[in-house]
Amino acid sequence: MKVDGKHYRTIWVKEHDRKIIQIIDQRQLPHEFEIVDLKTVEECATAIRDMYLRGAGVIGAAAGFGMYLATLQSSEHSFDRDMERYSNLLLSTRPTAKNLEWAVRKQQEAIAGVSSFAEKTDVAFRNACVMADDNAEHGRRIGEHGVTLIEEISRRKKGKTVNILTHCNAGWLAFVDYGSALAPVYAAFDSGTDVDVWVDETRPRNQGARLTTWELSKHGVPNDLIVDNAGGHLMQHSLVDLVIVGSDRTTATGDVANKIGTYLKALAARDNDVPFYVALPSSTIDWELNNGIAEIPIEERDPAEVRFMSGLCDSKLETVLICPPETTARNFAFDVTPARLVTGLITERGICRADKESILQLFPEMR
Amino acid sequence: MKVDGKHYRTIWVKEHDRKIIQIIDQRQLPHEFEIVDLKTVEECATAIRDMYLRGAGVIGAAAGFGMYLATLQSSEHSFDRDMERYSNLLLSTRPTAKNLEWAVRKQQEAIAGVSSFAEKTDVAFRNACVMADDNAEHGRRIGEHGVTLIEEISRRKKGKTVNILTHCNAGWLAFVDYGSALAPVYAAFDSGTDVDVWVDETRPRNQGARLTTWELSKHGVPNDLIVDNAGGHLMQHSLVDLVIVGSDRTTATGDVANKIGTYLKALAARDNDVPFYVALPSSTIDWELNNGIAEIPIEERDPAEVRFMSGLCDSKLETVLICPPETTARNFAFDVTPARLVTGLITERGICRADKESILQLFPEMR
Repeated sequence: MKVDGKHYRTIWVKEHDRKIIQIIDQRQLPHEFEIVDLKTVEECATAIRDMYLRGAGVIGAAAGFGMYLATLQSSEHSFDRDMERYSNLLLSTRPTAKNLEWAVRKQQEAIAGVSSFAEKTDVAFRNACVMADDNAEHGRRIGEHGVTLIEEISRRKKGKTVNILTHCNAGWLAFVDYGSALAPVYAAFDSGTDVDVWVDETRPRNQGARLTTWELSKHGVPNDLIVDNAGGHLMQHSLVDLVIVGSDRTTATGDVANKIGTYLKALAARDNDVPFYVALPSSTIDWELNNGIAEIPIEERDPAEVRFMSGLCDSKLETVLICPPETTARNFAFDVTPARLVTGLITERGICRADKESILQLFPEMR
Repeated sequence: MKVDGKHYRTIWVKEHDRKIIQIIDQRQLPHEFEIVDLKTVEECATAIRDMYLRGAGVIGAAAGFGMYLATLQSSEHSFDRDMERYSNLLLSTRPTAKNLEWAVRKQQEAIAGVSSFAEKTDVAFRNACVMADDNAEHGRRIGEHGVTLIEEISRRKKGKTVNILTHCNAGWLAFVDYGSALAPVYAAFDSGTDVDVWVDETRPRNQGARLTTWELSKHGVPNDLIVDNAGGHLMQHSLVDLVIVGSDRTTATGDVANKIGTYLKALAARDNDVPFYVALPSSTIDWELNNGIAEIPIEERDPAEVRFMSGLCDSKLETVLICPPETTARNFAFDVTPARLVTGLITERGICRADKESILQLFPEMR
């Protein structure tokens, strides 16, 4: 998507030098826009571990390119041993991210599929590019399918602004391009539909306040930041036409694990008859799971993320303590929204109801 | 309640100088404990508007003392006109809090009830003191009634910890003393019941993170800070036995206007069969209103409260910008929880269901 008029992805191959992978350093956003070169698999691993980039989609793409960089660093005589070590390095960065493992395995298979040492790097490069392109393409298709929901509301409102609420960041910064939850919003905006986005700040890591507001504004999409507490009030007063969120893991039955607080918005949407959609590439579907609340493990993170808050103070990034020094905190990263509260899922293959049969109709090969 | 072993109220008449009202400046909590003098009705209005003090109860008490200070500033020959102006000044500070208007009207009536100019100030002073004492006494009684709910759960859990979730600050800092939502918690703790409080940080002004954690800890009550997004997840996993919140304005039918986000917690409580109680002195009941969502005006505050966050950085209070500089925000201060989601109301006269008939049984004089 666009940053000040110029098209960017979150990760790409440097022009005229395919030995360098470039990424947007999301740690500095929204206060600084910095591009970082990744020249080695170690640098790539650091970028994933230290969250230069975050979001399932872009983590997977980074792992794909990391494996390509690894082939450049592996010597012919110890290739398999070297690659095993580099694979483990990448896998160790974010042990819970599913796409990471998926991308590493895909690369391992592709590399094993060619016998000549000279070709392995080419195969890994092409495969990494294809995985990144696929990720972007899935976002584009989610946008194509999801935009119909927005256009329908726009018609019903006779062209008046369609107000969309989103939680966390499931925009292009979380993917290679387009995003999941925001892909339909960009598609609507680009085709001239009048949209406005309510952006939940998304405590404790403020992905909404830091990233979603930034990427929407850079693309020109009108948006307003709100606290996570505000959505229910807005829905009670008909100020939200549609909720779209992303998903970190989706069960085969349509339960959705997403950033903590998503469930509360789903409840408010149901209570006020506001459609609540979840946009997701099918790679987030865990086909083994049938009960999200019982089966999806919820990561508990460092309480410091709750106790401290970062932002700009006199043009410098500072971190402030927001509670008494002695206060203890708990920090649950995700919650599960049961399928019964989900109006529909927007996938790269189309929109379906959040139940097993409807999902399988879009993905019959998973029956 | 106690601060480092010494008993405080949130507002009081200065010892040996009844022309000065003193308050705890809650803007600096929890990082600094400062006492501020209010010598004029204007200073009092500023203290209410700029939230030196906040919370329905103490706002009412401050308005009462503000009216007393106003009598000191009104001249005999233009008394009624002066007082009208001062009343309007106080009434203009915070639009949602019912107690503010209630206290101003009570003072107007009391002052109108005496004819001699000399006596008006004495009457206003005594009346302000009585209103403050009543407010503290109502908190004490709310604690006495509400503690039975906690004790019942404690018995059912065979003495295991009773986990109580609260939103915002409806503790003694929000009243003259004791509080509303926290009064039963203090009563339970003081009588030896094992309680633990989940404290919603309560964005954007972080009354939970700043004030509730502070006052609970100062009194010794175990508590953990959580983001506002977390309550639903906790309830899904049976980690909350009881929700108690306060109320800024309550309709005659039991709808409750309270800090933004309260409604979302009520929805989660209902979805998970967790009892959801609202503790309130009857002064927050607006007997004229029957439909909270339609009739209670919701204050929209400065977007800066959403865009910036304050806290301690290197022992200094700093304010940081948490979003892109160009980001716009909206800041709705309250939401309305419909009576259908409220298990019961805890008042100074006892506990009742959140419906007109049940409320009137406790307050038959309002029929």
